Amino acid sequence: MDADFEKIISEISSTKGNLYQRDFLLSWEKSDDDIRKTLLVAEALKYFRDTNISTRCFDSGLAVSIFRDQSTRTRFSFASAVNLLGLYLQDFDESKSQVSHGETLRETANMISFLTEIIGIRDDMYLGIGNNYMKDVGSALDDGFNQKVLPQRPGIINLQCDLDHPTQSLSDLLHIKNHFGSLENLKEKKIAMTWAYSPSYGKPLSVPQGIIGLLTRFGMNVSLAYPEGFELLPEIQAIADRQAKSAGGSFIITQSMEEAYRDADIVYSKSWAPMQIMLRRTELLRENASDELKQLEKEGLNYNAKFTDWECTEQLMKLTRNGKALYMHCLPADITGVSCKSGEVQKEVFEKYRIQTYLEAGYKPYIIASMIVNNRFSDPCRVLKSMIEKPSNFRTTLTD
Amino acid sequence: MDADFEKIISEISSTKGNLYQRDFLLSWEKSDDDIRKTLLVAEALKYFRDTNISTRCFDSGLAVSIFRDQSTRTRFSFASAVNLLGLYLQDFDESKSQVSHGETLRETANMISFLTEIIGIRDDMYLGIGNNYMKDVGSALDDGFNQKVLPQRPGIINLQCDLDHPTQSLSDLLHIKNHFGSLENLKEKKIAMTWAYSPSYGKPLSVPQGIIGLLTRFGMNVSLAYPEGFELLPEIQAIADRQAKSAGGSFIITQSMEEAYRDADIVYSKSWAPMQIMLRRTELLRENASDELKQLEKEGLNYNAKFTDWECTEQLMKLTRNGKALYMHCLPADITGVSCKSGEVQKEVFEKYRIQTYLEAGYKPYIIASMIVNNRFSDPCRVLKSMIEKPSNFRTTLTD
Amino acid sequence: MDADFEKIISEISSTKGNLYQRDFLLSWEKSDDDIRKTLLVAEALKYFRDTNISTRCFDSGLAVSIFRDQSTRTRFSFASAVNLLGLYLQDFDESKSQVSHGETLRETANMISFLTEIIGIRDDMYLGIGNNYMKDVGSALDDGFNQKVLPQRPGIINLQCDLDHPTQSLSDLLHIKNHFGSLENLKEKKIAMTWAYSPSYGKPLSVPQGIIGLLTRFGMNVSLAYPEGFELLPEIQAIADRQAKSAGGSFIITQSMEEAYRDADIVYSKSWAPMQIMLRRTELLRENASDELKQLEKEGLNYNAKFTDWECTEQLMKLTRNGKALYMHCLPADITGVSCKSGEVQKEVFEKYRIQTYLEAGYKPYIIASMIVNNRFSDPCRVLKSMIEKPSNFRTTLTD
Repeated sequence: MDADFEKIISEISSTKGNLYQRDFLLSWEKSDDDIRKTLLVAEALKYFRDTNISTRCFDSGLAVSIFRDQSTRTRFSFASAVNLLGLYLQDFDESKSQVSHGETLRETANMISFLTEIIGIRDDMYLGIGNNYMKDVGSALDDGFNQKVLPQRPGIINLQCDLDHPTQSLSDLLHIKNHFGSLENLKEKKIAMTWAYSPSYGKPLSVPQGIIGLLTRFGMNVSLAYPEGFELLPEIQAIADRQAKSAGGSFIITQSMEEAYRDADIVYSKSWAPMQIMLRRTELLRENASDELKQLEKEGLNYNAKFTDWECTEQLMKLTRNGKALYMHCLPADITGVSCKSGEVQKEVFEKYRIQTYLEAGYKPYIIASMIVNNRFSDPCRVLKSMIEKPSNFRTTLTD
Repeated sequence: MDADFEKIISEISSTKGNLYQRDFLLSWEKSDDDIRKTLLVAEALKYFRDTNISTRCFDSGLAVSIFRDQSTRTRFSFASAVNLLGLYLQDFDESKSQVSHGETLRETANMISFLTEIIGIRDDMYLGIGNNYMKDVGSALDDGFNQKVLPQRPGIINLQCDLDHPTQSLSDLLHIKNHFGSLENLKEKKIAMTWAYSPSYGKPLSVPQGIIGLLTRFGMNVSLAYPEGFELLPEIQAIADRQAKSAGGSFIITQSMEEAYRDADIVYSKSWAPMQIMLRRTELLRENASDELKQLEKEGLNYNAKFTDWECTEQLMKLTRNGKALYMHCLPADITGVSCKSGEVQKEVFEKYRIQTYLEAGYKPYIIASMIVNNRFSDPCRVLKSMIEKPSNFRTTLTD
Repeated sequence: MDADFEKIISEISSTKGNLYQRDFLLSWEKSDDDIRKTLLVAEALKYFRDTNISTRCFDSGLAVSIFRDQSTRTRFSFASAVNLLGLYLQDFDESKSQVSHGETLRETANMISFLTEIIGIRDDMYLGIGNNYMKDVGSALDDGFNQKVLPQRPGIINLQCDLDHPTQSLSDLLHIKNHFGSLENLKEKKIAMTWAYSPSYGKPLSVPQGIIGLLTRFGMNVSLAYPEGFELLPEIQAIADRQAKSAGGSFIITQSMEEAYRDADIVYSKSWAPMQIMLRRTELLRENASDELKQLEKEGLNYNAKFTDWECTEQLMKLTRNGKALYMHCLPADITGVSCKSGEVQKEVFEKYRIQTYLEAGYKPYIIASMIVNNRFSDPCRVLKSMIEKPSNFRTTLTD
């Protein structure tokens, strides 16, 4: 066991956290120690992978994924994470079965869980639905476990809902922790979380909400910028505000991208949908009002098209601290002249930071694996130590 | 090794059985000892899981699933079972390849089997087809193995065909074995296997056929009730009759739900399709007669709609032994006022037994795992003992 | 360690090869030693499987498959191979994500590779596209690895492109190596690689190209026969020519099936598409010219229909050496009177050699597994030896 690893283990030991057998749904429901512990265990697992030490800690068990929206990145991150620990990924494809909300969800949640350790859910399309769906699955599992239907209560990981995207925001946090050297170093750093134009109108609000809901905890100065009509959910803006005050940072909302970028250490510019339109959309869907939905869609597109000048450009980047802010994006970015005519970011800016955004994405498998380990094992340190101590001839190949 | 486990091992040792390298297609082709042994090994595997002992007995090998009809429960049960033993599930999706019956089946069966240990098949839509398909796959594998194309002859497990649904009926049997204390205790217990109305007309006959074809072996009094036109295949009713006589129980057919429920210890009420219509459907499909098929579909729905009063109600339940019969269902049930306007069971009855039906379903992964172990290993006791003796640091987490 | 195995190990040790961390895209880019080593490691892995020795050499890691065309055989072969070594198969389904060529490919290739050991790609539909796509993925991975985005550079295996089908041709080679006793025995053997009629016009050119591009290396006399219009890519015909000269064999092109069959030791007759039409098809697709595409399709079918007499018949087989040439096919074959009215081969011929074609197909999982082992481990002998030495209670079951 070398010095680096001993330091991580010692840090984990001294971090309390309360993650065992608790779903990871919203980052703001977690304590600071929970967040720190999740990062630390992720770093330990990454360290193991990088030094070719097997992190297999399950001999069997399913990890179920439920994707109610398309995904490449998160799908592969989840697959990688569960494989890293020895679980087997079984996708629950609703189109191949018959599930709906309400009474039958209770049943289905149990039927897919007899030998399941973890359930990852993406449900991010409709405001007011995704997170509730996850909580409903959780209640059904509680019931099944209490009634001895299930030998274990599978944990749930939010792979993006209408409110938060914690596997993304914690990967982002780990990325900037490493970029700036420590969580402590984030104090008083300024981040511009801004809206940006994209022709593919209608993206979830969960990424910006996840960012303001997480980074305000670390004493950062968070500037949220968006054009009128693109506000985030008021309750989450309120959480960000409260957290910023308590951590000694700030949370400011502005309608000027320039203002947000000025002296920023980090910029995170991406498109999201106009909240009011999204809320009406959920209602119309519930009413099955297809004509009105088409009309609303048109309205949204027209409104969105007014703001093509919200783009991360080289000129804007010059306003940031020494012109060298770290550019972040959850990917895929809509790059002007590359993936679309007019988009979130200029080609030149993106190209400069492209590798940085890949590195940012690369933390996600470990963040998810950490969430699983912390959910399933009361003493993650013991598990990590046994990985080191276990004699293993056959490991992932890296350096051979 | 504790007393409970020693008892199971000793029971398994004293049970002959002839399951090694034999497909599990129809329960009535199996001896009583085969059935007992399947239950016992399932119980041992469940005991291991419940006490956190790894049941991994394969280091590699595919388990292929072929679902020619939709499935959630059985799909996850099969996935759980194969994962529990260390096999890797590979779904054979006919829509992504080009398979048909006849000459090419012979080829495909071999092409998917070079490193395959077990093949699970669901083919339950057409009377006269499903079971034959499974036997055709079996013959193709025999041929391939004899000709040294395959290093091993994969076993086949019937995951529901037109005749039987043995993974379901054996799970049901294990459920009532545990409910009543032993298989011996089932003697002279009365079960009402009855038809019930569901708007989703057209369900397979294999569940009721599986039940009468299995439970008549244990000296139970089996009352089968259905409205005119919903008879089961005559050959299976004949098997039930013969078995009941030989086991000292009874097999009675009635057109009265009340009669079946009276003094019953167990009630199992579910919808199935009218046999004659199903037989004509298979013929029309073969002739590709789409207009006639639509007409037949309409006819079936109209006929079905006459019997909405065939519902498991609180009032009917009062007729059962002390008003306390065990309600069973293979799920999902069509619950009146919940999943449909008028269905198989009243909401109040279902809610009372809901957890019992979940527990019933929970045996299926172990039944399937047991079928695999019994098919692949000549001496399952040796395999189970080695699971206990093997030092293993990394196991499924339950209590951590 | 028995004598057979020691012989294989010793042969592998004395074969140089340069396969470590190099993609397997085109057989003609590989040295003779590379080819020999791939066969030898495949044979060792098959020997282990046949003697029930676990070949698991990864504790975790993804193997990603990208099928841009339908597949049963190769899909299952790839699944079997990765499972045999302990990797987990994750299919990358483009329809569930949003991938395209160009700029975004670079990103996606990295996003699916954070914990990936191997990527298998089938892209065989368009001349001028498939192999370039694989090379583009490779460049993206090189970039990601060099920039430290990826902890390892996943290997790429060509599961069929527009130019070559190396997992097929090497399986074919291993089949005839075993049939004739050694690679040396192939010298001066005559193989007829001929076009044959199939109603399903439009099959890739990669199988015949793979055969002439591989077998000309072993001093065989390769006769390629096709009707006018069905020539293969000139650059690959040139490679075959050059290799034949260097190996002391011959490469002859003829428009007579009889001539090719005369005194042949092996015949390999299958349909492929007319090259010029395929080249125009790619162009029209790029231009999105759907009307012209339909017209071209019609043209292709009409032209194809002129050559129904190109069929492997009993009469033609009589022309071969002692009337006993080995019939080969990559499967599925279009069998006259079985899978189509008029096809590639007479029923009687196919039936006689059916089992031989299954055996031929059965090498593919081991060829792929060998490609993976050779790509990931600098010293495959050490890996194979550790498989033997490792104490393992739980292995694939064969003889139990």
